[in-house]
Amino acid sequence: MPVIDMNSDVGESFGAWTMGDDAAVFQYVSSANVACGFHAGDPSGIAQTCRDAVAAGVTIGAHVGYRDLAGFGRRFVDATPTELADDVLYQLGALEALARAAGSGIRYVKPHGALYNTIVHHEEHAQAVVDAVNAFSPGLPLLLLPGSVALLKAETKGLRAVAEAFADRAYNPDGTLVSRREEGAVLHDPEAIAANMVRLATEGTIVARDGSVLAMDAESICVHGDTPGAVAMAAKVREALEAAGVTVRSFA
Amino acid sequence: MPVIDMNSDVGESFGAWTMGDDAAVFQYVSSANVACGFHAGDPSGIAQTCRDAVAAGVTIGAHVGYRDLAGFGRRFVDATPTELADDVLYQLGALEALARAAGSGIRYVKPHGALYNTIVHHEEHAQAVVDAVNAFSPGLPLLLLPGSVALLKAETKGLRAVAEAFADRAYNPDGTLVSRREEGAVLHDPEAIAANMVRLATEGTIVARDGSVLAMDAESICVHGDTPGAVAMAAKVREALEAAGVTVRSFA
Amino acid sequence: MPVIDMNSDVGESFGAWTMGDDAAVFQYVSSANVACGFHAGDPSGIAQTCRDAVAAGVTIGAHVGYRDLAGFGRRFVDATPTELADDVLYQLGALEALARAAGSGIRYVKPHGALYNTIVHHEEHAQAVVDAVNAFSPGLPLLLLPGSVALLKAETKGLRAVAEAFADRAYNPDGTLVSRREEGAVLHDPEAIAANMVRLATEGTIVARDGSVLAMDAESICVHGDTPGAVAMAAKVREALEAAGVTVRSFA
Amino acid sequence: MPVIDMNSDVGESFGAWTMGDDAAVFQYVSSANVACGFHAGDPSGIAQTCRDAVAAGVTIGAHVGYRDLAGFGRRFVDATPTELADDVLYQLGALEALARAAGSGIRYVKPHGALYNTIVHHEEHAQAVVDAVNAFSPGLPLLLLPGSVALLKAETKGLRAVAEAFADRAYNPDGTLVSRREEGAVLHDPEAIAANMVRLATEGTIVARDGSVLAMDAESICVHGDTPGAVAMAAKVREALEAAGVTVRSFA
Repeated sequence: MPVIDMNSDVGESFGAWTMGDDAAVFQYVSSANVACGFHAGDPSGIAQTCRDAVAAGVTIGAHVGYRDLAGFGRRFVDATPTELADDVLYQLGALEALARAAGSGIRYVKPHGALYNTIVHHEEHAQAVVDAVNAFSPGLPLLLLPGSVALLKAETKGLRAVAEAFADRAYNPDGTLVSRREEGAVLHDPEAIAANMVRLATEGTIVARDGSVLAMDAESICVHGDTPGAVAMAAKVREALEAAGVTVRSFA
Repeated sequence: MPVIDMNSDVGESFGAWTMGDDAAVFQYVSSANVACGFHAGDPSGIAQTCRDAVAAGVTIGAHVGYRDLAGFGRRFVDATPTELADDVLYQLGALEALARAAGSGIRYVKPHGALYNTIVHHEEHAQAVVDAVNAFSPGLPLLLLPGSVALLKAETKGLRAVAEAFADRAYNPDGTLVSRREEGAVLHDPEAIAANMVRLATEGTIVARDGSVLAMDAESICVHGDTPGAVAMAAKVREALEAAGVTVRSFA
Repeated sequence: MPVIDMNSDVGESFGAWTMGDDAAVFQYVSSANVACGFHAGDPSGIAQTCRDAVAAGVTIGAHVGYRDLAGFGRRFVDATPTELADDVLYQLGALEALARAAGSGIRYVKPHGALYNTIVHHEEHAQAVVDAVNAFSPGLPLLLLPGSVALLKAETKGLRAVAEAFADRAYNPDGTLVSRREEGAVLHDPEAIAANMVRLATEGTIVARDGSVLAMDAESICVHGDTPGAVAMAAKVREALEAAGVTVRSFA
Repeated sequence: MPVIDMNSDVGESFGAWTMGDDAAVFQYVSSANVACGFHAGDPSGIAQTCRDAVAAGVTIGAHVGYRDLAGFGRRFVDATPTELADDVLYQLGALEALARAAGSGIRYVKPHGALYNTIVHHEEHAQAVVDAVNAFSPGLPLLLLPGSVALLKAETKGLRAVAEAFADRAYNPDGTLVSRREEGAVLHDPEAIAANMVRLATEGTIVARDGSVLAMDAESICVHGDTPGAVAMAAKVREALEAAGVTVRSFA
């Protein structure tokens, strides 16, 4: 029986500002990347998100980011490795307390936004994230881009590195993501997307932008919940996976 | 053998800004109220403070406050009870992660500044703090002002409420603190202060402003480290306690 | 020819978080209360709001608040009068620079949220707001609740105090707002609301909750744009005012 | 009569945290780079700094930085040009309001920390700063590193670009600063430093690290006030300049 995880960002509201439809997303995903307060997420919003995740049977992961509310964690911040490691550890502890109060706890870590992208190549920031996760809980899985420098460092440290695929992103034939600066980087056809994700879950391959088929060793599929269209796409992917006999289940 | 605790606020630097001489304070106290990031304390500074506390054999407590860096937690913020409880829980978790990475953990909680003063009388905020501490770790001691509403609520909840005395503050004959708005509220004579604290530790009494002797059931003495004079006073209190055969030891 | 102003809060997005439909609101109001960054509003969002206001011919006012992004300025913060006055002055200057770059400038000031409500009765905070506005620009109008302590202080200082009415709020027979804790405090019938606002603009009276008619000396009507229903209500009020021959125009 | 300016960073305290001895610095400098709240400086502290600068007859400049209190503006933040320009404009307006209330106003702009260093080479951020200054006040001088990309862009825009020299930094023979990563980058001998600054003011040359003499077209000398040693050095430079018949005066 093929198995795959579906993950999505949640808990990204802040105070009076709402973002995303977490309740809708929880119907479809098996893993919730919960904001930890540095790029998004106030404590009460995070707490509610954790309770909702537990109620929906969705696994909680820590969506750690740079300390940058105004930039939503989407801007690289040239922190020292020590600052970054401690910022990550602080976020992990904060979310853990709220997740435990909700009856669960952090089961994996996924860096957010600019941090996610930076540690694909930035040795020091990648090491800082890995060190922080290891200091928090040795063996905690890290959800990352395949080929990320952080992924190698995580494995070296004895952490479990889990690779993910992006449902709505086009891939180059070499397995890298088509840059958002190029046309066609973001996919919009729910049927095609769902078919590609079924292929990933059942055969371990995806169809690249040029039509070539490439091996993709991903244990999780990233979907979004920030627009009605995104939620509909997540629903479609979930439905197609189950129709194909794939079990959608957390990797953690 | 009489025993008493000495506690002080530490870890209150933030980024490039330094506050207090934590290294000096760690020579004299048995308990460290470590800032948790909402009124003071950045993650790397907190982490360093925790390592220093562990190295000095000082017990770590969580110094939780209102979310108000600009006001250093000294201003009442009219948060909802839910917001406050979740803010406290977030801070507890964040500090716990950093304290555990330093080889220890949170052993007690002391509210800071305006929060400390508010929960002497504010029922809802007192309950919110107690609820958060209980959600984090049932049985964790709370260090509070004698007579505080929060103290009663903590005991009702099954938490251990520990009362403290302030070394450098004058007391009214009824056991309340002389208001800072009145002359003579803050004491400056190290000898007299030390003698009063020895009396507290050995006899359970202190001398009030009018010379009367009153019973004071405090298990901890609060001292400061934010000025050289404050550190010298802490040193003097410690020395006098030990000379009187009092063991200075954490209550936790 | 009767004249009245219509004002609404705008520019309350922050970074990646959107709030309200400012573009829709600009179709109906004559005055825009633009967030200044302390309760909401990041500089680029504020700048865009100012450009949009100028393009729509809407007058810019400064919507100053307590320094509390996490609470959206809806929580009382017990700042010292000096802190509050300087916080207000800081916000005024910041918005002025962005408004001037957009081809306009601040034409009035309206305190936001908890600050608006606090200075109805809090002498020191009322004085601090008035002092800051006067320091920024003597004579700048302040938009306030009728009967507000701040209103009297503004007039004493030589500032122009402008009273406003709330389109969607019920009034007690004594001219005060029905508390939000009471049922019926918020009105929902666009027709009735519009009729009452026409009465205000043409006769200087409104109908209170008990059906009594009371004099109301308001030069501006506050409407909202945070929900589709609120925008529709603003549209209805505007339409009814114009149909009754009322000119909707800024008081500034 | 030779003339030169001396500038220093001030107003960098934040809330309860103090930084630098501004009062001491005001005795020696002619220009004050006042923090604007994004890397340091709370409104009341800024206001006090402005009043002190005015009382001391020191010219006020705006020390604008990245939005990063936790990093004190010393970390590059990958903001979009629009975000950065609006952040700078916001800071300029905020300081202007406080400076005007103190009886003065912004007479020049000096970027702070990572922003200062970034716009030496970062085309987009340099342009954003220049655009913001120009939007705020065409013709306002910008105080920059000689050779900075921002300096060229400022001149292209019609702004006055003023180059500065660093009293306590060693120079390479090509006029660039010796990197802080190299030994000897920071100078400590007050006599030698003062002699070199006199040479700069009177002959337009400085002695580089290797003893070579190089032309330096700087109109201002940057000194510090964050340590007693730094203040003493500023005093020595000022004394030597005056003894050599140099007038210390703002360039603005």
